[in-house]
Amino acid sequence: MKETNKTIDVSRFEEEVRVFAPATVANMICGFDVLGFAVHEPGDEIIMRRSEKPGVRLLNITGDEGRLPKDPNKNTVSACAEMLLKDLGLSDKVGLEIELHKHMPIGSGLGSSAASTVGGLYATNEILGKPLTKPELLPYCIEGERLACGHPHADNVGPALFGGITLIRGEAIKPDLIQLPTPEKLHASIIFPQVDVPTRDARQLIKEKVKLKDAVVQWGNIAGLVAGLYREDYALITRSMKDVLIEPTRAILIPQFEEMKKIALSEGAMSFGISGSGPSVVAMSTKMETAEKISSAIQKHLQEQDIDFFAYVSKVNTEGPKRL
Amino acid sequence: MKETNKTIDVSRFEEEVRVFAPATVANMICGFDVLGFAVHEPGDEIIMRRSEKPGVRLLNITGDEGRLPKDPNKNTVSACAEMLLKDLGLSDKVGLEIELHKHMPIGSGLGSSAASTVGGLYATNEILGKPLTKPELLPYCIEGERLACGHPHADNVGPALFGGITLIRGEAIKPDLIQLPTPEKLHASIIFPQVDVPTRDARQLIKEKVKLKDAVVQWGNIAGLVAGLYREDYALITRSMKDVLIEPTRAILIPQFEEMKKIALSEGAMSFGISGSGPSVVAMSTKMETAEKISSAIQKHLQEQDIDFFAYVSKVNTEGPKRL
Repeated sequence: MKETNKTIDVSRFEEEVRVFAPATVANMICGFDVLGFAVHEPGDEIIMRRSEKPGVRLLNITGDEGRLPKDPNKNTVSACAEMLLKDLGLSDKVGLEIELHKHMPIGSGLGSSAASTVGGLYATNEILGKPLTKPELLPYCIEGERLACGHPHADNVGPALFGGITLIRGEAIKPDLIQLPTPEKLHASIIFPQVDVPTRDARQLIKEKVKLKDAVVQWGNIAGLVAGLYREDYALITRSMKDVLIEPTRAILIPQFEEMKKIALSEGAMSFGISGSGPSVVAMSTKMETAEKISSAIQKHLQEQDIDFFAYVSKVNTEGPKRL
Repeated sequence: MKETNKTIDVSRFEEEVRVFAPATVANMICGFDVLGFAVHEPGDEIIMRRSEKPGVRLLNITGDEGRLPKDPNKNTVSACAEMLLKDLGLSDKVGLEIELHKHMPIGSGLGSSAASTVGGLYATNEILGKPLTKPELLPYCIEGERLACGHPHADNVGPALFGGITLIRGEAIKPDLIQLPTPEKLHASIIFPQVDVPTRDARQLIKEKVKLKDAVVQWGNIAGLVAGLYREDYALITRSMKDVLIEPTRAILIPQFEEMKKIALSEGAMSFGISGSGPSVVAMSTKMETAEKISSAIQKHLQEQDIDFFAYVSKVNTEGPKRL
């Protein structure tokens, strides 16, 4: 990143901040690589304190089952904090101590690395008295995503940072990020069946070429979903939120996918599909009551199949990261 | 089509109607097979009169250079009128005499057959006292399109019938047609260089498979265009109205395509691309003055190249067919 020419006001610095950053559902079922939305849970909690000694230290990580790098240059939270300090010319002036508490599974298709990246950068910006706006933080988030998963893409960090439903078009590095309207009633039932599908593997599974006629159906659906969001037309959203291109391939990696889909739709879901690169799945509905019924029915089914899982029910989170 | 159970009110019948039906720009540059819009010119004029003798007769066709079928069972205007009469149980009761005046080129990628089909059905419905609504007329229009060009698709008949900018998703035969907002300032400069590119040939040129990464760019653009129309965000519309998938193949059939594109963009066009399956091209802009400047500059260039052409400048037509 190039050095910014922001004026830093030391009097606005804070001693400690605690931040929540949300999980995100990339693709929003039909919009592979261009859509995503944030939820209220799960998410990451980040505690950041200023210290006398300059530099960024990663004090503690919980909830990651030892899977995340403890090297502050490699962990996305501390590395991104350092990147931002450096760009602001504060590397040798400010000391930061970080605790990362992961309240969400890693490698689950819920934007775990994006939550940490966005949370870390949001916390850093807060502790420094908010020198940057959210749009100014976005390039750092994308760079953090590249560091964390090798893929500089905004379909998780975009909605995690801005909240709501996000359209990402144009170049990966400097994307054109458009906030779409979030219809009030949209609820998500998320289930993470505990099988590990690394993003890289899920990406490799996808074919390089697709049938044009399938692509036409898919972009008709994406256009229909965007129009449905603006019109707050739940019937149109329901008709449009279908993935004919990616799901047939990726669903193979997800145990009980078809069974869960059948259950969700029979319990009144508008739509059911894969969250990001999976294995988490998501059912959309228009009522909290329905969202919970769907979740319970799928949970019951997975229990019968002896498959461990995490389950979350949430409205779309229009806020993004927040102070705790 | 199945017989309708509409009540026919003979007292509302008219003796003669004159109807204008507009040309349409299918795809709207980036939305292959899912978007289209109507213009104020060119278009077809249809004169329809009731006669004593039952049955549909095609009295006269002008402006088609002898290219359209004169057999009333094969010409889309008369065949569709007959189809509608039959469905309404009026075949042996009502006589119609039709004149079709084509004020637009055939095989130009401007929805010539759609204009005739929509105009014929609209005129028939008007002369019968409007027993059907526009949505009820749509299936007949799609059937007419199949008759006229072998391809039952709504990306021309949809916008020709409803006016404005139309999104067509779902099945070809029973499409899900969504009227998108038409930002006030949108203007189209249409140029038809006089080379013949039959729709069938242009379709055959398109590859069956496309790269997924190109498809992602394309559906990001389509989603961006839809969002831009709702936001009335001309900058976003401009960024989004780009075709990375179809244009590279189809443009080969269009003489001076790259040169015309360069001229249009240098004269201030938001975007430039192929209308439908071509060879007509379209430049979009936000002012009538710009639209006319673009048109003049391209016309001048084509004259220098000794290429004959038709040129039209129009706002997006939000009305569709109308009585003259």
